[in-house]
Amino acid sequence: MSELIQPRILKGFRDFLPADEIGRALLIEKLTSTFRSFGFVPIDTPALEYSEILLRKSEGETEKQVFRFTDNGGRDVALRFDLTVPFARFVAAHKEEIYFPFKRYHIAKVWRGEKPQAGRFREFVQCDFDIVGSDSAAVDFEILALMKTALGAIGVDGVTIKVSHRGIFNRFLQSRNLSEKSEEILRTVDKLSKIGPEETEKLLSNIAGEKNAADILVYIQGAGNQPEDFEATLQLMEKMAGGTAEDSNRLREIQKLLEAIGISKSFVLDPSITRGLDYYTGVVYETFLNDLPSIGSVCSGGRYDNLAGLYAKDKISGVGSSIGLDRLIAALDTLGTAPAQAGFTEAVIFNTDGFSMAVAQKTAADLRSRGVSCEVFPDSKKMGAQYAWAEKKAISWGITLTDGSFEVKNLSNRKTTVVSSASEVAAIIIAART
Amino acid sequence: MSELIQPRILKGFRDFLPADEIGRALLIEKLTSTFRSFGFVPIDTPALEYSEILLRKSEGETEKQVFRFTDNGGRDVALRFDLTVPFARFVAAHKEEIYFPFKRYHIAKVWRGEKPQAGRFREFVQCDFDIVGSDSAAVDFEILALMKTALGAIGVDGVTIKVSHRGIFNRFLQSRNLSEKSEEILRTVDKLSKIGPEETEKLLSNIAGEKNAADILVYIQGAGNQPEDFEATLQLMEKMAGGTAEDSNRLREIQKLLEAIGISKSFVLDPSITRGLDYYTGVVYETFLNDLPSIGSVCSGGRYDNLAGLYAKDKISGVGSSIGLDRLIAALDTLGTAPAQAGFTEAVIFNTDGFSMAVAQKTAADLRSRGVSCEVFPDSKKMGAQYAWAEKKAISWGITLTDGSFEVKNLSNRKTTVVSSASEVAAIIIAART
Repeated sequence: MSELIQPRILKGFRDFLPADEIGRALLIEKLTSTFRSFGFVPIDTPALEYSEILLRKSEGETEKQVFRFTDNGGRDVALRFDLTVPFARFVAAHKEEIYFPFKRYHIAKVWRGEKPQAGRFREFVQCDFDIVGSDSAAVDFEILALMKTALGAIGVDGVTIKVSHRGIFNRFLQSRNLSEKSEEILRTVDKLSKIGPEETEKLLSNIAGEKNAADILVYIQGAGNQPEDFEATLQLMEKMAGGTAEDSNRLREIQKLLEAIGISKSFVLDPSITRGLDYYTGVVYETFLNDLPSIGSVCSGGRYDNLAGLYAKDKISGVGSSIGLDRLIAALDTLGTAPAQAGFTEAVIFNTDGFSMAVAQKTAADLRSRGVSCEVFPDSKKMGAQYAWAEKKAISWGITLTDGSFEVKNLSNRKTTVVSSASEVAAIIIAART
Repeated sequence: MSELIQPRILKGFRDFLPADEIGRALLIEKLTSTFRSFGFVPIDTPALEYSEILLRKSEGETEKQVFRFTDNGGRDVALRFDLTVPFARFVAAHKEEIYFPFKRYHIAKVWRGEKPQAGRFREFVQCDFDIVGSDSAAVDFEILALMKTALGAIGVDGVTIKVSHRGIFNRFLQSRNLSEKSEEILRTVDKLSKIGPEETEKLLSNIAGEKNAADILVYIQGAGNQPEDFEATLQLMEKMAGGTAEDSNRLREIQKLLEAIGISKSFVLDPSITRGLDYYTGVVYETFLNDLPSIGSVCSGGRYDNLAGLYAKDKISGVGSSIGLDRLIAALDTLGTAPAQAGFTEAVIFNTDGFSMAVAQKTAADLRSRGVSCEVFPDSKKMGAQYAWAEKKAISWGITLTDGSFEVKNLSNRKTTVVSSASEVAAIIIAART
């Protein structure tokens, strides 16, 4: 016999056992159903693309993390590291076939060679939803409303969605002649929640001077961090940025719509939210779990002016957001609220002495046709083993076939009912559903 | 402005536009629901694994087709090319955590650098379902019943599932002292439907001599290719293989169960089905569309003795099958029966003169909470453009808000009803559902 191979997997990659995979599948089903109720449609793109396409904004950081290689045909290819870049390429390639405003969702795996740590994996599922081809406040609002509704649909109700606008911040920096340093400043501001205001101010001083650093701190700390501080914070931002303009009024319009449908309490205007990535140009946002803010944002996004700019002449603006599903599930695990379910089987037909497999299989087919999920225990094992197996699969009902009658046992309270047809069995099981 | 990048994708890879992706998603949802009704649970494994793990049976053919590379950490890795090898590794790694008989389904992408051609892609979705840890005829039967039921659930009713048994064929070859050439012979027999009996016999003569070639032809052609020829063909196989044995009686047991649930007419015993792959040891099968047999098998599988043999000492037997979902969809496209659906939106609230976006969004949220999927047209465009957009998304209902009342228009027959509340709007839409 040849040497055994150790069945190991790559660091940062994971197997999903049934309970976890069922939990993830159920979350995805609920998210999908919410996206559809808002009129979003799914698309799909390849996992593997030309590196030239994916690494368009080749920041050093991204490039280092990408799984990139030369395929057997000598092509320079890479695994996608997000769903935004492939979407930009998709919109450019298919702009004559799709209809604008175009609302799509895409739930799929992406790969990054990050250092594995809690909540960070090298293979993980992203869940993106975007609306492109409209610059109205209505669609900015729709993405925010969908974030709140989708998270609510999967039982994540205690969230704070922090919103800001890159345009106002850009005006503020411009008024201080800091536009050229904006990328550096944005990256530093992004660290506020991690390193605190003092450390942030110190770093900013090195970039922009003491006076400007103090001003930036005032700007990003706003007038307060509660929903009711919205107007006061916005006015402070406007004052420091040179007055009211389209960008700040856009935030007012969005706020009005959030109030109209009664969800504004979950949103706060937080000028420190800037999103490091340079393609955002309008509203930006991040979402924190009230019970576990330390895990970081579980759903982030914003508006971009020119999504497909590297692939098409037309300027196509849009707005979108992304749920980091695996990070969210890791957070729910920590909070003890992650969904887990052992199986889908409602009933098992036990394999008992003198039992006919043909009759059992016929009964199972009959029950399934009546909407009851069930299976036949295939081997004639001891009843203890069959019960233990049913328990591991969290099966609620055990059926024993005897001389044309059906003994239906509720496996949690051991109560037994005897009936004479499969339709009666199905009726008992369906009636007991919660 | 910098040079535009052509938004191209790799040969053999595909974008899925909404109509196609919705079609695929709906098929997957129906398959999933069928698997669950039979008690199967989902698992997931990484797309990327150590090459050592995936290429265990490194046949030259497979190796050439695999996307294999060295990652940034110097590891020799590969994209999975099927879901069977990762499942074997999974079972070996988690045998203490799962329960046997273990029934899993796995619907996921796999990658092969095949020459792209009709129905063949370099990235495609496999849909596998297996039962491991039981050697009973009942589970052989269950996989076959599930194949028939799952294909039926997605509207593919006209199928012929051709079944045989590798054990009987092995006995037959042994009786002719041909065991050592069995791999070569199996590969040749596999070509029968493509090259015809004469050409097959010629090739077999070169391998096994004229007399044996003629015998093999008699064996693989059976007594007939109809469900009613089952017993005659089986007896012919037994006679040529040296008599009745466990393997041939296994086929009788399975046949009895297929008859018990009334689906035996879709199955034929076809001794030419051998499945080239050498890990099969028991029943083997392939599925052909009655209206398009030329596309090849859309669902194949069989029983294997020792799934995880390369990774674990325990012998774990199992039986499973795999639907080539993308090939099946390509076939349904050819037949004009592939599902396609433009969207999920039932109603659009038109963006009309004097309209309040806040009221429109409130109405939309209200309709969604009543189970109606809807969206608000975000921009104040001409009505012609809004109607055209609604048509492209196949939206059935158009709502116009005027002075506190709701004008609900059936967009296919232009019939209009005016009501005074969102709940009445929802009632009209729900009542008209088919």
